Amino acid sequence: MGTKGEGNRQRIIDAADGLFYRRGYNQTSFQDISDATGITRGNFYYYFKTKDEILDAVVNSRIADITAMLIECEAKTRDPRERLLMFSNMLDYKRDDVIQAGCPIGSLSSELAKDTTELREISRKTFVVLRNWIKQQFESLGISNADDLAMDLLAKMQGATVMACAFQDADFIQRSHQEIKDWINTKTSN
Amino acid sequence: MGTKGEGNRQRIIDAADGLFYRRGYNQTSFQDISDATGITRGNFYYYFKTKDEILDAVVNSRIADITAMLIECEAKTRDPRERLLMFSNMLDYKRDDVIQAGCPIGSLSSELAKDTTELREISRKTFVVLRNWIKQQFESLGISNADDLAMDLLAKMQGATVMACAFQDADFIQRSHQEIKDWINTKTSN
Repeated sequence: MGTKGEGNRQRIIDAADGLFYRRGYNQTSFQDISDATGITRGNFYYYFKTKDEILDAVVNSRIADITAMLIECEAKTRDPRERLLMFSNMLDYKRDDVIQAGCPIGSLSSELAKDTTELREISRKTFVVLRNWIKQQFESLGISNADDLAMDLLAKMQGATVMACAFQDADFIQRSHQEIKDWINTKTSN
Repeated sequence: MGTKGEGNRQRIIDAADGLFYRRGYNQTSFQDISDATGITRGNFYYYFKTKDEILDAVVNSRIADITAMLIECEAKTRDPRERLLMFSNMLDYKRDDVIQAGCPIGSLSSELAKDTTELREISRKTFVVLRNWIKQQFESLGISNADDLAMDLLAKMQGATVMACAFQDADFIQRSHQEIKDWINTKTSN
């Protein structure tokens, strides 16, 4: 695929990513993505035959972004505790989006849990990446129940997000974030 | 409205409630509800003109069920701590549903956060009832930040639900439930 083709493909993925997040997967049509990109539906099918294919590409693109963010985080500090605290900051700098439309990963997962097994498994992939990374951080501190703590941290962040979004409450995100940081400090202290 | 009319209306609400939960609000059509009830679409419009009206009726029906459950809980014990523990047991006896389709209240809220303000506000109503009831329990123990604790408890339950559903992990629900009970005991101890 040439440069133009690659550019169009990425434009479709980026537009779909935003629409899936702000409207939901099921509420986004091929036409919506076509309108958002200006790429006609005819051309569109050259890149993606089905919406499921777009979903897969969107999830892979999110995983690439998250992986880049985690690598950046690892480059900034060798201290796993600092890395986990840095990861939790996502709650803060994504606050406005979260209050408006929830967590992109969590809300997609909740939506597609109600769908076919295949879509459910696609949407789970992002959580798998995060869970493994968090687990590694706890493990490198010699903590034995690292995977449990990874699930706990993700659950805390998801819970804060769902409730902050339900009540559109920015203060709740902030307070929850502080409690999550306290929890990370407690769990990682010797 | 006669008895038959009331019966049909309730059948529509019950069918819609189940479909909204298992498939999602946006993925449920008038036709789906008609098929599930055997009530023709023509008759259907006699009871509800729009899907938003059905949503409102479903949310009110859920609130009625939850209120009945909370009243039953209050009748069983006068001890607010026991009541809160009893409330948290919902995680356990709804476990199979939760793993399959998430929390009915949380997943509807997450879905409709992406919709119009009006639908968002309808879906929030159930959380408001729960938040107020939990707050009252903490308040009656003389706890000053009762509303914060109510939000925290709901966030913990939502977080456990989102992650258990994402990974279809019954053990995680069980472990989280135990930690939530420990948290309730800590917060309500003198």
